Parts: sequence; structure tokens; C-alpha cells
Amino acid sequence: MKNIRLTIEYDGTRYLGWQRLGDSDKTIQGKIENILTQMARTKVEIIGSGRTDAGTHARGQVANFKTDSTVSLPEMIDFLNRYLPQDIVVQKIEEVPERFHARYNAVGKKYSYYIWNDKVPSAFERNYSYHYAQDLDIELMNQACLKLIGTHDYIGFSALKKTKKSTTRTIEEISIKKEGKRLHFTFVGNGFLHKMVRILVGTLLEIGAGELSLETIDEVFESKIRSEAGVTVPAQGLFLDEVYYKEDQRELSVA
Amino acid sequence: MKNIRLTIEYDGTRYLGWQRLGDSDKTIQGKIENILTQMARTKVEIIGSGRTDAGTHARGQVANFKTDSTVSLPEMIDFLNRYLPQDIVVQKIEEVPERFHARYNAVGKKYSYYIWNDKVPSAFERNYSYHYAQDLDIELMNQACLKLIGTHDYIGFSALKKTKKSTTRTIEEISIKKEGKRLHFTFVGNGFLHKMVRILVGTLLEIGAGELSLETIDEVFESKIRSEAGVTVPAQGLFLDEVYYKEDQRELSVA
Repeated sequence: MKNIRLTIEYDGTRYLGWQRLGDSDKTIQGKIENILTQMARTKVEIIGSGRTDAGTHARGQVANFKTDSTVSLPEMIDFLNRYLPQDIVVQKIEEVPERFHARYNAVGKKYSYYIWNDKVPSAFERNYSYHYAQDLDIELMNQACLKLIGTHDYIGFSALKKTKKSTTRTIEEISIKKEGKRLHFTFVGNGFLHKMVRILVGTLLEIGAGELSLETIDEVFESKIRSEAGVTVPAQGLFLDEVYYKEDQRELSVA
Repeated sequence: MKNIRLTIEYDGTRYLGWQRLGDSDKTIQGKIENILTQMARTKVEIIGSGRTDAGTHARGQVANFKTDSTVSLPEMIDFLNRYLPQDIVVQKIEEVPERFHARYNAVGKKYSYYIWNDKVPSAFERNYSYHYAQDLDIELMNQACLKLIGTHDYIGFSALKKTKKSTTRTIEEISIKKEGKRLHFTFVGNGFLHKMVRILVGTLLEIGAGELSLETIDEVFESKIRSEAGVTVPAQGLFLDEVYYKEDQRELSVA
């Protein structure tokens, strides 16, 4: 049984998200599984590093699947990219050790979120960023970023209900880069709770617009009450850029 | 009668091009005219600087129209952007002297064309660039750019049939910038013939891939035979960036 790892880029605009729902053709996972099943002539199930919401994009989603297929790796990637719709592209294919698991072995993730910060929206950014017309105090937002990083219980900044599982995460980087009229937010951490990136961006925007104070961050860490944080910004500004795995697992991979 | 000038950005993916066809709702001109007609409660016709093909985009298309409407300019741009689909955005609205004509007064245009030059296509570039997998000799293509600029009869690099009108144009700039896996072609000139930019890009690509020689350019200028030049690359990589008008006409404009 071979274990195959895929690195996948997708424009999530037309999809209900990563995760297969029944036999829906409107999910990324479903699309890829259908084609692999056709190729292998037996049902193939793939394991993603994690879900992405409807409308959210990925530049480096990672998934793996096991197969007995004798199709070579170059043939496999060609087959996938020939039959996948143009808004889903497999960028890389590798054979990995049998124990590699795209979800369990992930040790971190990197996300981007884009804001189009101008009076008028952009015809090209409508599916790839969130239009926000108000002036923003970027200096203050940078201070807020520093307060948000570290090791914390982020449940107040998530859409999760109280759970027995740990909701403590370590976020190494939250940064904002101004690229013309576009603000590029970067998030790097060992894991993110459901809708956490979008709620963190919403909170940062409200702080930048003067609607929430810098102290709100400490208060939400303390109270763990979701409604005290900022709004959830829309899914279309969010990109899963990269999934990180332990270096040793990469070294063991067979190219 | 007021003369109003619009600067328009659009994602051409869903449209049959700029020019209104009958009462079709699938053209940019048609969409804008329908909304202005609703606003002014009388039929409005707009004059564009020129057509763009189906699938081609614009960052700075210019159009003008005459109206007796008493609606103010800020209200007008708000009305347009509220009722236009999200892939058409009016970026700027100005009142201009009565003699201003978006087509007749245009003295030059700037276009961009994008190539995604990688083995694998990109999920995000599919509607905004042309995927070209072959290796390219950019150095040689730059030499070809220098041969293509100047004042020439470009009919051999156009989709035009023999015509009585002059097909001589002055092209000041053709340049290629490598932006990661993307090649960004820029064209600036006093006018471009039908499909000329796309045929120039096709010719440059074939020279860069070693399928046409540098001398082809002189030969096509000499023979004026379309079939000796390169292919017409697809419309989706093309952007109308800017339309130039004489400085004095801009100075006379009422803001």
C-alpha cells in the first residue's frame, strides 16, 4: 500500500468548503476523491490537514491517501490536473512513509487574510479579499497583533462551544503588511480553532477603526466570551497558505 | 446638458466584451447603460474609449455620456456601484467639457498581458493570465520587443482585413517584467489594431520558445501577412490599464 501526499491549490469561490458532504460535488475533497476513485478503479478516501470553510481558498492545502494503484506519480498528477476543474490544481505529489497522516502530523499552519481598504471596492478583489471602506489605524492594529500572539486559550476568539478538548494554541506570528490598497494579514501558529483567523481579523479591524479598545483582547482572553470580540469577517478573504510537518517526516519522504 | 466621464474597472470573465450587442445584458456597456437609463429615467448611451473583447479585463476603461439629470456626481457613482454587479466598478466620475469624447479624444492606451509560466497552472490565475508551460528565452524576447516598437504599419500583427483607414501606429513601449512565475507584458502606444496586443504577445512567446526567429518581425512588417506572425493568445490575460487624453483636456475638466 503506497501513501501519497498531495499539495493542493484551490479557489474556494464555487465550493461549499474542503470537507466532503455526502456525495456532494460541491466540495474540494469530494472533487479530488471522485477523480482518484476513477483513476484507481476503487474507492479512494483522502485525509486533509483540516477543513476550510465555503469560499475560503488554499495555496498549500495538504492531503494524503493510500492506494495500491500502479499508476506512476507523474501520471497521477497529470491525470488529476487534467480532470479536476481549473479552480483546483494539484501542485505537488510525493510518496511518503506509511505512517504519514496529513491531519495528525500537522504541527502548524500559515494563513493569509486580505482586506481591500479603499472607499470603492475592486472588481478583481471581490472573491479574494474583504472590502472595508473605513480608515484604519495600522499602528494600533500592530500593537494589537503583539497582544494576540503567544500561548493562550483562544476559545473566546472562536466559533467553538465549550469543549473538553484543549483550546489553547500557540500563535507565533500575526502581522499586517500594507500592499497599496490591500492589507495582507499573516497568521502562523501550531493550530487554529474554528473561524479563529476570521474572528481575529474582525477584532483587529474594529480596534483599527476605533470601535473596540486594545484592552478588549485581554478581556476576551480572560472572559472567554465570544460576543466580546469582533465580528467574523467573510470567508473569501482567507487563504490557507501552508501546512507545516516535522522536519524528520519530510526527510523520510520518498520523492 | 452635462458631459460626464467615467473611469471603469471590470473583470471581463462573465461578459461578451465591452460593446453593447442589441439589448444584451452580457456586455459591460449594456450593464452600465441600463443602470444610467434607470437613474436618469430616459435612455442614456455611453461612448467608450474603444472595445474590449469577451473575457478581457479593464482597470481604467474610460467612457462619457451626456445627461440632463440633476443627480449629483457623488450620488451618481454611489447609484452605479450599488446597482452594478460586483465585477464592474466605477472608480471615478467627473464632469468634463461638452466637447470631450472618450473615443475621438483618446491619444494613447496602456495594456497589460499576463503569462503564467510554470509547468502546472494556477487555480487563481485561470481567468487573469494565459498558462504557458514551455521555457522562454526572456533575453531574446526583450530584443524582439525593441524591434516591435516604433512607428510601423502593424496590419500583419492584427486581425484586420485590408482597409482604407491607416493601420500605422506608434508603439512607445513593449516591455516584459518577471514577477515570480508570472510574466507581465506592458504595451503603450497611440492606438492598437484589432487583436494586435494578443498577436504581439503570441509572436513574442513563439520567439521566446524558439519556434519563430527574431527576423520574423521584420518579415511581417514587410509582407503584412497575418499568418506569418504568432498565434493570438487568449483574451483572459489582457487588461486595458489606462486611456490617455491630451493634458489640456484634463486641465479643463471640472472636478
